[in-house]
Amino acid sequence: MNKRLTALTEWMKTKDIPFAFITAPENVFYLTGFRSDPHERLLGVAVFPEAEPFLICPKLDAADAKSSGWAFEIIGHTDIENPWDMIEAEVKNRVKNVQQIAVEKQHLNVERYEELAGRFPGAVFVAAEEKMEQLRLIKDKQELAALKKAAEYADLAVKTGAEAIREGKSELEILSEIEFEMKKQGIAEMSFSTMVLTGTNAASPHGTPGSTKVQKGDLVLFDLGVVYEGYCSDITRTVAFGEISDKQREIYETVLNAQEAAVAAVKPGAMAKDIDLTARNMIAEAGYGDFFPHRLGHGLGISVHEYPGITETNTLVLEEGMVFTIEPGIYVPNVAGVRIEDDVYVTADGVEILTSFPKQLTFV
Amino acid sequence: MNKRLTALTEWMKTKDIPFAFITAPENVFYLTGFRSDPHERLLGVAVFPEAEPFLICPKLDAADAKSSGWAFEIIGHTDIENPWDMIEAEVKNRVKNVQQIAVEKQHLNVERYEELAGRFPGAVFVAAEEKMEQLRLIKDKQELAALKKAAEYADLAVKTGAEAIREGKSELEILSEIEFEMKKQGIAEMSFSTMVLTGTNAASPHGTPGSTKVQKGDLVLFDLGVVYEGYCSDITRTVAFGEISDKQREIYETVLNAQEAAVAAVKPGAMAKDIDLTARNMIAEAGYGDFFPHRLGHGLGISVHEYPGITETNTLVLEEGMVFTIEPGIYVPNVAGVRIEDDVYVTADGVEILTSFPKQLTFV
Repeated sequence: MNKRLTALTEWMKTKDIPFAFITAPENVFYLTGFRSDPHERLLGVAVFPEAEPFLICPKLDAADAKSSGWAFEIIGHTDIENPWDMIEAEVKNRVKNVQQIAVEKQHLNVERYEELAGRFPGAVFVAAEEKMEQLRLIKDKQELAALKKAAEYADLAVKTGAEAIREGKSELEILSEIEFEMKKQGIAEMSFSTMVLTGTNAASPHGTPGSTKVQKGDLVLFDLGVVYEGYCSDITRTVAFGEISDKQREIYETVLNAQEAAVAAVKPGAMAKDIDLTARNMIAEAGYGDFFPHRLGHGLGISVHEYPGITETNTLVLEEGMVFTIEPGIYVPNVAGVRIEDDVYVTADGVEILTSFPKQLTFV
Repeated sequence: MNKRLTALTEWMKTKDIPFAFITAPENVFYLTGFRSDPHERLLGVAVFPEAEPFLICPKLDAADAKSSGWAFEIIGHTDIENPWDMIEAEVKNRVKNVQQIAVEKQHLNVERYEELAGRFPGAVFVAAEEKMEQLRLIKDKQELAALKKAAEYADLAVKTGAEAIREGKSELEILSEIEFEMKKQGIAEMSFSTMVLTGTNAASPHGTPGSTKVQKGDLVLFDLGVVYEGYCSDITRTVAFGEISDKQREIYETVLNAQEAAVAAVKPGAMAKDIDLTARNMIAEAGYGDFFPHRLGHGLGISVHEYPGITETNTLVLEEGMVFTIEPGIYVPNVAGVRIEDDVYVTADGVEILTSFPKQLTFV
C-alpha cells in the first residue's frame, strides 16, 4: 500500500475500524491517484487494515482508473448492475466482522448510508473527515510540485489580466482574455470563478464581474486560480490603472504591509491564529479594522478551500509541509477594495512563497 | 402557500408525513424562488401540511432570500450558531408528533441526517426525491418563459460559434468567443462545459475541446447551454466548414431525419420510449445502430439533466408541460461525429420546439 493508505489504516487500527468506505472525489484522488467526477454514479475506495483495498467506479472509467496508477483491484459497475451487491461481496471476502465503518459523514448521502447499514447490520458509522483532513494537511514533494506549478500559472493569469487593462475595457472582457490564455496554456479548469473587479466594485464583498469598464484612477482586483494535476492555486493582486488617490495608496500600503508581515510570521511552531492576528492587528492599528471582515486565509491543496482556516482563534500549530493562503483585504465602500493574496508553504525553518507576481503597487 | 408547496403538502398528507426538510438547492429554488448555492453551509426549507413553512439559510443570504419573494419566515444562522437547534425549536413549535420526516435521501448527508434523527428520535425517514421530480416534471407558464429565453440565448451562442469559424482557428478559440458573447449578453453561467469539437474529435464520446484547429472539410459540433433565471437550455448543432464528403453528408442527413421524426412523434399520450425508438430505429435501419450509444434525451428545467430520461425502455406517458431534449447522434471513429439536439415542450396536442437555430446543414 502507498504511504497515504498506510496512514489511514494505522488510524483505523487504533480505532478498531475494520473497513472504511471513502467516496468524496477529492479523497478518492488523494488515496488512489484517480481523479474523477462520477456525478450521480458511485465512486469509492474501500480500505482495510487487514486486507487489500479496492476501488469501485463506473465501468466506463475503469480503464482511466487503471492508467492513473492504482495497483489494486478495480471493480467497474454498469448502470444495470447494483454496485452495493458487489461491495458487500468484496468486503465480506476480506473482513469477517464489520462492527464499525468509517465514512465521510459530510459527503455520504442517506441513500448510500442506508445501503451500507442494511448490508452490515449493527455496524457503527464513524466519521472519516477529520482524519482525511489531517492526512491531506501535510503535503509531500509531489503535491508541492503540483502546487508550485499551479501557482506559476496563476501568476501568468494575473500578468495576462494586468496587461489586458485598457481604458473602457470591461471586467468581463479582461476576465475572458485571462481564461482564454489559460485554455491556450492547456489549463482545463480554473479552481473557482475568476474575479476581475474594478474601482468601487472591488469594495463590495459580493462583487461579481460585469460590464463595468475600467477607468483611469481605478484599482483593479484580480482573484483567481487554476487546477494543475489536481492541485489548486489561489492568488489575488490589485493593480492601479493610471494615477490613484492618496487614500487608495494608503489602503494599498496598509494591506501590503500587513500581508508581508503575516507571511514573515509563518514558521513551524507558530499558531495559525498568530499569523491571522499579525495582519489583523496591523490593519486595526491603521484604522481599517472594521473593513477587514474575513479570515486571513485557508488551506490549499486538492480543494481550493480546505483545512485549516487561518483565523484569529485557530490554535493549530504550523508544521513543515502545510500550504495555505494569506490574503488580508480592506474594503471601504464607495472608495476602494484591495486584497493581496499569496499561497505559502511552511518549510523546515520558515516559509516559501509559491505565488510570485510582484506585490509592490503595479501601475498599468 | 404557493401551488408548489401545496402540491407537496397534499402528498405529505396522503403519506401521513408531518414535516419535510428539503435541502437540495434546486428543490429549495423550486419551492421558494430563492436560488442559492450555500456551499458547506446549511440551506433548507421546512414544509408542514398543518403549519406555515420556513426557510433556513446563512444569515448573510437572508436579505436575498427575502427579496426573492419568499413570503414566509426566514431564519438566518451565523457561523457561530447551531442551525439544528433553531430547526428543532421551530419544528416543535409547529408539530407535536414527528413520526415521519421527508428528506432527499440522495442529497442529505449522514451528518445532517444524524442531527435530525437525534432531535426527532424514532422518526422514520421517507425519500422525497421522487415526489420533487414529479412536481418539477410539469412546467408552468413562468418556467416555460424562462426555458424559452434560455433556448434563445443558446441559439445565439451557436450562431456566434458558427460565425467564428475560420481556417486554422482552434476549438478553444471558438469556444472562448462564444462564452465571451454570452457574458456580454449578461449570461453569468453556462448550464455545463461548452463543447466545440471539430473533425474526428467530434466522433469521440469523451472528446474535450482543445487546441485542434478547424480545417476545410470538417464537421464542427457545438453542444452548449445557458442558465437564464435559474432555468437551463441545452442545444447541439453540427455545421460544415467547406465541402464535406458524401459519407459525412449521409451521416448528417441520417441524424437529421431521425431527429425530426422523433420531434414529430412528441405529443401527450405517447410514451418516452416511443420517442427514443422512433429515432433509434431509423438510425439502425440506415446501418448506424452501433454508432448511437446513448439515450435520446433527458428532462430539462432547473437542472440541465433532470427527470425523465428519454430512453428506449421508459414507459412514462408524456403530458402537456413536460420539457426535454431530443438529441440523436452518430459517432463513427476517425470519420465524423454528428449530433443534433433541440429542447422541446409538450403542448396540449403536440410539440413546441424551443431551440430554433437552423437544422438543415449549414455551410460556414
